[in-house]
Amino acid sequence: MGETRLDTARIRAARRVIDPAFLDTPLYRCEALEPDLGCTVSIKLETANPVRSFKARGTVVVASLLADNGPRAVVCASAGNLGQALAWSGRGRGLDVTVVASRFATAAKLDRIRALDARLELVDGDHEMARERAAAIARCDGIRLLEDSLDIETCEGAATIGLELANTVPSFDTVLIALGGGALATGVGHVVKTLTPDDSTNTVADGVAGRRPIPAVLDDLLLVADDAILVREASITAGMRMLLHHAGLIVEPSAALGIAAILEDCDRFAGRHVVTIVCGSDVDVDAYHRWVGSAPIHRSC
Amino acid sequence: MGETRLDTARIRAARRVIDPAFLDTPLYRCEALEPDLGCTVSIKLETANPVRSFKARGTVVVASLLADNGPRAVVCASAGNLGQALAWSGRGRGLDVTVVASRFATAAKLDRIRALDARLELVDGDHEMARERAAAIARCDGIRLLEDSLDIETCEGAATIGLELANTVPSFDTVLIALGGGALATGVGHVVKTLTPDDSTNTVADGVAGRRPIPAVLDDLLLVADDAILVREASITAGMRMLLHHAGLIVEPSAALGIAAILEDCDRFAGRHVVTIVCGSDVDVDAYHRWVGSAPIHRSC
Repeated sequence: MGETRLDTARIRAARRVIDPAFLDTPLYRCEALEPDLGCTVSIKLETANPVRSFKARGTVVVASLLADNGPRAVVCASAGNLGQALAWSGRGRGLDVTVVASRFATAAKLDRIRALDARLELVDGDHEMARERAAAIARCDGIRLLEDSLDIETCEGAATIGLELANTVPSFDTVLIALGGGALATGVGHVVKTLTPDDSTNTVADGVAGRRPIPAVLDDLLLVADDAILVREASITAGMRMLLHHAGLIVEPSAALGIAAILEDCDRFAGRHVVTIVCGSDVDVDAYHRWVGSAPIHRSC
Repeated sequence: MGETRLDTARIRAARRVIDPAFLDTPLYRCEALEPDLGCTVSIKLETANPVRSFKARGTVVVASLLADNGPRAVVCASAGNLGQALAWSGRGRGLDVTVVASRFATAAKLDRIRALDARLELVDGDHEMARERAAAIARCDGIRLLEDSLDIETCEGAATIGLELANTVPSFDTVLIALGGGALATGVGHVVKTLTPDDSTNTVADGVAGRRPIPAVLDDLLLVADDAILVREASITAGMRMLLHHAGLIVEPSAALGIAAILEDCDRFAGRHVVTIVCGSDVDVDAYHRWVGSAPIHRSC
């Protein structure tokens, strides 16, 4: 494997500063999903924590660095999860946190960001506009701009999930990782490829890339991901529905991408042991019911 | 505290034989629940494991003892969770498992028990009739009868949750524990009372007792529980709804008893730090929607 931006020693150091509430998350086999998927399925659950997503693994690392040595203020753009995670991490360390979000983001998520004492600024546009506004605030105010996936700490935090997977017995054949900005996929992919080189473990990123991929992150991704699977919306909602009925889990769409990827290509995963990272559960319940209600009643391999 | 049937050294020994998938479960503060409840709320989540409830902590202990030294067959009566847990624990240790259930139990739970290779026998009556039939099978076939809460291993397994709570910093004021047969309440109560004697931690059992309380279990309960709170059905469904909307958790009714207890007596818990054990998530999704859909839209303290 070529050299990514990540370094395993730094990832181990990141693990030492992350709050225990985010570490050593459940990893368990979910047999009730298996008849419909035709493979062995294990779930790595990243939602049972104070912010309901894996994002705090990275924001805690950033906040710790700032608290020790840096500006005492930080800003990020967020559709919800990163903002909550940064607000939570910064509050505990006395940092001044600003989150910029689209005015069209889920109201419940915005309320939670405010409840965590962050300053919330709304832009009248999409997430890319929020990113631009966050960068402008950082420049004007001389504070730290946190950019998901580009800032190495966000990848290192996510990569600590990989440390936990690499320590697992029995091992697995494939890890399915949601691909958004790329922190999760490059972080986990780096560790799994580095620490289980003798195994035949595949790392597969699934989902849809953002509108503007970050070149440095894309370079890393090409080194650590064996493949990327594009999944259809209908497969995502079918995956959400299966996780509800067979695993009792409420998940956000990104967290169902792994199941969706299996549904898209059943033959590829048949008889294998697949780990899927359930990366977030922060949904608006009404929207959730619409998505799950619109899913096909029964999809299977 | 007087002498219960439980012994902390035996509980520590039980922990050493329980599969890691059931240990060190998430414990985290859920701030989104707090505005409506008027107290600090932490969740101990016992649903992210292969059988979706805490019951396997106890059945693994029983199955290990039988595998080492005992009849290679075991029978239990179950409404679902105990049967799944025993089937899972026995299968991995080469035991012959029989589960007796009411014909009126949830179909999905019965399917899962069968899928775990257990022999399932249905009785045309309620759970008490299933208990009688299980005892008769044990007598006729000379195999082990597992009786939830009466058999000390089921209490010791549940008590390992208490070990995890007692190790927690920051500590809490009250632990709310579902009271069914009593294994969870006496097990966790014993450990919390034994290991945090200097704290003022209360253990409170909530819910409704079974039709036939077991005298030995009741004796233990009176020693370790500071109080028992009777909750109304409407508070249970309101608790389920709050856990869905604010914590993103699908739970079975017994797992919402802690939240229900707070709703029943807001003043008592105001400003305290309460831990509630979310003990199971194995619901039929259609029944779940009926319960949650019938809950009052908004209940709060």
